[in-house]
Amino acid sequence: MYRVDLNCDLGESFGRYTLGMDDRVIPLISSANVACGYHASDPVVMEKTIAMAKEAGIRVGAHPGYPDLMGFGRRNLNVSPAEAKAYILYQLGALDAFCRAKGMKMQHVKPHGAFYNMAAKDYALAKGICEGIAEFDRNLIVMGLSGGELVRAAADMGLRTAREVFADRGYEEDGSLVDRRKEGAMVTDEDTAIARVVRMVKERKVTAVTGRDIDIRADSVCVHGDGVKALAFVERIREVLTEEGIEICPLEMIV
Amino acid sequence: MYRVDLNCDLGESFGRYTLGMDDRVIPLISSANVACGYHASDPVVMEKTIAMAKEAGIRVGAHPGYPDLMGFGRRNLNVSPAEAKAYILYQLGALDAFCRAKGMKMQHVKPHGAFYNMAAKDYALAKGICEGIAEFDRNLIVMGLSGGELVRAAADMGLRTAREVFADRGYEEDGSLVDRRKEGAMVTDEDTAIARVVRMVKERKVTAVTGRDIDIRADSVCVHGDGVKALAFVERIREVLTEEGIEICPLEMIV
Amino acid sequence: MYRVDLNCDLGESFGRYTLGMDDRVIPLISSANVACGYHASDPVVMEKTIAMAKEAGIRVGAHPGYPDLMGFGRRNLNVSPAEAKAYILYQLGALDAFCRAKGMKMQHVKPHGAFYNMAAKDYALAKGICEGIAEFDRNLIVMGLSGGELVRAAADMGLRTAREVFADRGYEEDGSLVDRRKEGAMVTDEDTAIARVVRMVKERKVTAVTGRDIDIRADSVCVHGDGVKALAFVERIREVLTEEGIEICPLEMIV
Amino acid sequence: MYRVDLNCDLGESFGRYTLGMDDRVIPLISSANVACGYHASDPVVMEKTIAMAKEAGIRVGAHPGYPDLMGFGRRNLNVSPAEAKAYILYQLGALDAFCRAKGMKMQHVKPHGAFYNMAAKDYALAKGICEGIAEFDRNLIVMGLSGGELVRAAADMGLRTAREVFADRGYEEDGSLVDRRKEGAMVTDEDTAIARVVRMVKERKVTAVTGRDIDIRADSVCVHGDGVKALAFVERIREVLTEEGIEICPLEMIV
Repeated sequence: MYRVDLNCDLGESFGRYTLGMDDRVIPLISSANVACGYHASDPVVMEKTIAMAKEAGIRVGAHPGYPDLMGFGRRNLNVSPAEAKAYILYQLGALDAFCRAKGMKMQHVKPHGAFYNMAAKDYALAKGICEGIAEFDRNLIVMGLSGGELVRAAADMGLRTAREVFADRGYEEDGSLVDRRKEGAMVTDEDTAIARVVRMVKERKVTAVTGRDIDIRADSVCVHGDGVKALAFVERIREVLTEEGIEICPLEMIV
Repeated sequence: MYRVDLNCDLGESFGRYTLGMDDRVIPLISSANVACGYHASDPVVMEKTIAMAKEAGIRVGAHPGYPDLMGFGRRNLNVSPAEAKAYILYQLGALDAFCRAKGMKMQHVKPHGAFYNMAAKDYALAKGICEGIAEFDRNLIVMGLSGGELVRAAADMGLRTAREVFADRGYEEDGSLVDRRKEGAMVTDEDTAIARVVRMVKERKVTAVTGRDIDIRADSVCVHGDGVKALAFVERIREVLTEEGIEICPLEMIV
Repeated sequence: MYRVDLNCDLGESFGRYTLGMDDRVIPLISSANVACGYHASDPVVMEKTIAMAKEAGIRVGAHPGYPDLMGFGRRNLNVSPAEAKAYILYQLGALDAFCRAKGMKMQHVKPHGAFYNMAAKDYALAKGICEGIAEFDRNLIVMGLSGGELVRAAADMGLRTAREVFADRGYEEDGSLVDRRKEGAMVTDEDTAIARVVRMVKERKVTAVTGRDIDIRADSVCVHGDGVKALAFVERIREVLTEEGIEICPLEMIV
Repeated sequence: MYRVDLNCDLGESFGRYTLGMDDRVIPLISSANVACGYHASDPVVMEKTIAMAKEAGIRVGAHPGYPDLMGFGRRNLNVSPAEAKAYILYQLGALDAFCRAKGMKMQHVKPHGAFYNMAAKDYALAKGICEGIAEFDRNLIVMGLSGGELVRAAADMGLRTAREVFADRGYEEDGSLVDRRKEGAMVTDEDTAIARVVRMVKERKVTAVTGRDIDIRADSVCVHGDGVKALAFVERIREVLTEEGIEICPLEMIV
């Protein structure tokens, strides 16, 4: 019996600004990464997002980012491990307040954007993040790039981990993502992308950009809800996974 | 046996900016109102502040403010009750994360600056604030201006309340503070100020700016730690209160 | 020969967030109020907006707001006249840099949202705003609510003024807008709204919510570009104004 | 006849937070780098700072930083050259508004903190910065690390440049600063530090951390005004420079 989680960023609107089709993607996913007010979102949006997630019965996790609203948390920012730890605590706590208010429990933590990418490569930064998580709640699942430093640091600290894979991205032989500026960074054909995910889940293999097969573990697949095309892809990957006998279920039932 | 709490704002530094003599005032107070990153503070400061408070054995509470760092939360901002509620939840949660990390428990909530002042006068706003507090943790003590709307809204919702008084401010006959632009707004003589506090605690009376005595309840006295002079005043009020047989102890032992 | 300006807010996107259909409304207006990074916009958006305005040959003005991105500058914030003056200087200068870079000249200044509304009622605040404008460039046209305090303060200081009217809002007998919470605040019928504008321009009269005609001057009409319906209304008001022999032209050709 | 400029960061307070002893350092320097509201400062502080500088008769320049108030602009942030250009334009314009209001002219631009350091090493980023400066005002002097990429990019674009040296920092053989984590990063002995500056100005040489002499050009020396000790050092370097026949004068009289 195969299982995988589908995760999507949620609640990235801010004040007067709306982003994402949250109500449309919620029924299609099993776990939502909810922005915490640093790279996106604000308290009013967070309250509404948690209410929507509860209504839909999906699991929620924190999606903490760098304090860079202008750059949507996508730009590398050289924070120290101690700063990272404090930023994690702050954002986990803030989101948790809305979960408590609605009687929900946070399932996981997945850093956002540049925070995610830097933590996948920098063990010291990843350790700072995990210390924040561990001090807040040792039951939280730490989601990071499959094979990356965040997952490694979390495991070293005895935390539960979830390894995330990307349907539309190429992999290097060492399991890292192909740099977006290089050829092979994106898997543009949707059938190919989905077939790769199926294989990652069932065979624990993926073909690297070099042509060689590498080992990979897929607890969760990252999907997007920021447009009609993205939504259609989520519907399609759901269909194929189901046809392939892969059950889509929340992280906490997998790891 | 008389008891009163001495409360002081704490942890109002931000990034490279230092404010207040936190280490000096901590030994002199029984409760600290800790800034939560909206009108002041940042996650690194919050972590350090909670660690200092724990070390010193004082109680901490949240000091949520308006999202107006440039104005230090001192300017009236016309937020809706729903926004107020969400801002409270966000900041309570954020601070609570650092308390959890250090094994501390939040004792109270006292809104900051303009948020405090507006909530003392506007019942709908006060209700929004109290809804946030109640949804987060019904055991938190709500601290507000003695006789004001925040304390009234909290009591109406069945929350524990603490009535705060000011040593250095004049009172109108209705129990509100004399507007700072009017004569009699400030009590400048320190002996008089302290004598007024003693009377508020023991006799539950204070002489209004009109000369008439009014009823007032004093669970906590607001003191300041942002300068040498302020610290000297705190030391002095401590001495006199003790001489008068008034025990200084945390809010949770009083209300 | 009658003339009127059509003005619309522009460049209100921020970082990853897009707001408004700027490219669609630009061909329909004669003056654009460009956000300056406080209530909305960022430097990248500002550069792009000025470039678009130049390409289209429309006039631009500054649209300074309160430093309240989370509230989109729509919440009353109690800034002092000195703060208002400094906030105006900062934002005028920031926008002007992009105008200089593209070889454009700012035509006017119209405060945004709550800044606009408060300045229409508070002469001291309006004076602070106008001092900032005057110190920056005495040739700038100050746009404010027709009959309001901003226009009055600007005139008192010898600045050029433009009186703005609203097609879809009801007026009190004193020329102020009917409070949005009261009946008669909005003029919902589009034909009526447009007919009112035509009369304001030609006869300098409008029927107040009480039924009585009052005097009003209309140098510019506020329109919106934030949706398909709003755009359709702008096209329609353009047609009717033209049929009525009213030329649509930039502020600087009118006042 | 030898000449050198002494430059110091100024106006780095923010809202309720005070930083630096601006009034004390102003009489000791020839050029001030004024913060522009991104890494530090706000419009009220900027207005006051420009007024103080004018009163004292010193030259002012813009000190634009990354939009990272929490990190005081000291953390590397991976902005694109296009973002850098827009951030420069925004901040130059904002500061220039206060200069115009006081009848002052900006003399130079010196990026702050991590923006300065990254621009010293990254030609593409430096070029983005210089494009912003050039589009704003080609007469501005671009101040950067002596021998760094910012100065090189500025010269390539035909802009006036000023090469800055540091009294208290060690240099590598290629003219870059020794990394702060390495030995030899700081020159702690004050006499040595000052003697090095004198030699940089007169002989255009400095001894690198390796012991070998390298060529260096010193148009301006960076000094600090954020403490009593820093001020004492500025007074001392002034004395020695004067004794050595080196005139301290503003950048625009040197480059």
